[in-house]
Amino acid sequence: MKRAFSVVLTTGLLLSGIGLASAQAVSPEDQIKFRKAGYSFMSWNMGKIKAMTVDNPASYNRDQVLAAARAIAGVANSGMGALFSPASARDVGSERTRVLPEFFQQPDEVRRLATNFNREVNELARVAETGDVNAIRAQFGRAGESCKACHDKFRAK
Amino acid sequence: MKRAFSVVLTTGLLLSGIGLASAQAVSPEDQIKFRKAGYSFMSWNMGKIKAMTVDNPASYNRDQVLAAARAIAGVANSGMGALFSPASARDVGSERTRVLPEFFQQPDEVRRLATNFNREVNELARVAETGDVNAIRAQFGRAGESCKACHDKFRAK
Repeated sequence: MKRAFSVVLTTGLLLSGIGLASAQAVSPEDQIKFRKAGYSFMSWNMGKIKAMTVDNPASYNRDQVLAAARAIAGVANSGMGALFSPASARDVGSERTRVLPEFFQQPDEVRRLATNFNREVNELARVAETGDVNAIRAQFGRAGESCKACHDKFRAK
Repeated sequence: MKRAFSVVLTTGLLLSGIGLASAQAVSPEDQIKFRKAGYSFMSWNMGKIKAMTVDNPASYNRDQVLAAARAIAGVANSGMGALFSPASARDVGSERTRVLPEFFQQPDEVRRLATNFNREVNELARVAETGDVNAIRAQFGRAGESCKACHDKFRAK
């Protein structure tokens, strides 16, 4: 049953372009560690973009914002779906997770939110190339909404 | 004194192309958290490339290797030098660090190793586009060496 569900989820994530790395076995504990690392690193880079386009636009630096946006897109495009096996749905060893059970029960909704997120952060990297701080700020807002949509639905408070 | 040294280190890292985000204040505790997240996420992606080009080349998937290499380059190019203020040289709060004191005493050597690392992982992303698994495997080896050079010198065992 669990396995059948995993296949459904896997298929959903593959369809969404998140992809899976089939050649590498990652323990459930490491899946939690690596996915939290990815989200944490993206949050640092979102914070930089916010600082330079929302909080203090006078500090805007095109190269730094572009590097931050590309880091986020690179992480988002890397196939993080592989880091959400059913065995990683709860704390494992020393790794704690805030993912909610609903994440593993609603693959269609996960796929929809993940697809939105990937689209918005890739668009953010594209807009960051232009150096148009107003356009970057607007797209940063849309990217942030796409993060929040998943947090609201599938992450414990 | 500490501040003067920080300026030297900062200048060194800027010259190496690592860059600093001046508009965002990140606590020393979060610097450790975010830099460990970045290295951890890169290690997951290095593991995928190793699995698909060294351990089991039959599983090679161009898109997955390319996505992994781009994630690594995106993280490496994102300005991680900003996450190494002198105040982050030791464990802070709940965050533990393995960085050695020598890291903060040898800015020229840090710059040299960081520059090598950035060059090798950007080259890895470039070679990954070609789909030439032998070339990717060779460049993966060089990228791994550039990681190891810094671990050997500036990371506690």
